[in-house]
Amino acid sequence: MKLLEEKILREGKVLPGNVLQVGSFLNQQLDTAFICRLGEEIAQLYKDAGITKIVTIESSGISIAFAAAVRLNVPVVVAKKSISANVSGSVYSARIHSFTHGNDFTAIISKPYLSEDDNVLLVDDFLAVGEALRGLIAILEQSGAKLAGCAVAIEKGFQGGGDKLREQGIRVESLAIVESMTNDSLTFRQS
Amino acid sequence: MKLLEEKILREGKVLPGNVLQVGSFLNQQLDTAFICRLGEEIAQLYKDAGITKIVTIESSGISIAFAAAVRLNVPVVVAKKSISANVSGSVYSARIHSFTHGNDFTAIISKPYLSEDDNVLLVDDFLAVGEALRGLIAILEQSGAKLAGCAVAIEKGFQGGGDKLREQGIRVESLAIVESMTNDSLTFRQS
Repeated sequence: MKLLEEKILREGKVLPGNVLQVGSFLNQQLDTAFICRLGEEIAQLYKDAGITKIVTIESSGISIAFAAAVRLNVPVVVAKKSISANVSGSVYSARIHSFTHGNDFTAIISKPYLSEDDNVLLVDDFLAVGEALRGLIAILEQSGAKLAGCAVAIEKGFQGGGDKLREQGIRVESLAIVESMTNDSLTFRQS
Repeated sequence: MKLLEEKILREGKVLPGNVLQVGSFLNQQLDTAFICRLGEEIAQLYKDAGITKIVTIESSGISIAFAAAVRLNVPVVVAKKSISANVSGSVYSARIHSFTHGNDFTAIISKPYLSEDDNVLLVDDFLAVGEALRGLIAILEQSGAKLAGCAVAIEKGFQGGGDKLREQGIRVESLAIVESMTNDSLTFRQS
């Protein structure tokens, strides 16, 4: 998505540790009109996929998930991050390792909000190693819900998580794929 | 807002510890069309207030803040919750006590996203004791931004936080104010 690539080039900052900071429009400050455009694009990509719910994980994917869900006219289910591994029996859960924060956490979704009748689109702001999406996929498997595919705003292609999911036959749509980045240059994968 | 009161009566559950669970539409699962209606209502209330930014705190206020911001055509700034009290000099921060979780956390906003040119509307899903809003107000004061007012979906009136803010001359708009609740009855403040 040209619009997103241009925005990243204009406002993004490359920080140490392979961090691409897009806080000015995507996760600290939300450019609402722009995020609505991202949501429209995701909805367009999945409009014929029979999506019944969008699932995301708190908190920076929520606005994009919401914008896409408004267009697809479906609810969003938000997986909560819990520090404790002790979760009661009424939730689906998965342990996820965060490379950004260097810790593990448990993602949980209450059982009433996912079932085998659901056909789910996973949405997040970033896809790097793919840990968060893999955790959400594990949760879907517990619930019996079908996975229609994933959509993320920015994939860091050089970290390999997206391609690994694609190799497993999972549909992964990224609105921008960063192929390489350094302090002074940033290149996108050509689609 | 009649629509929200009816939804709470239909789907809300009163849990031990004065918890009103509205996970089916407001924070675990997001009823997107419904949350857009809440956003419209908030935008309607503040349409003449000259709002430049909406500020919320992660994560359950994000969708409502986003829906209101789309209508007001302003960005949302999301205060991040940090467990550590050690925050660098480039952020505004406030310690907040969570009565729900029984712990303290630090809310932070990066300095570039708030300035004395801003006229801010604070949005959250719940207002009980008012700790979160007071923390956000402390952050606004550090930044020099003006506080136009607060808007929340559900105020638990019997916990007093909203009225305390109003007594300080702060505009607080709540789309539904729960005046009392027990396992089998729930009453709203008449407006």
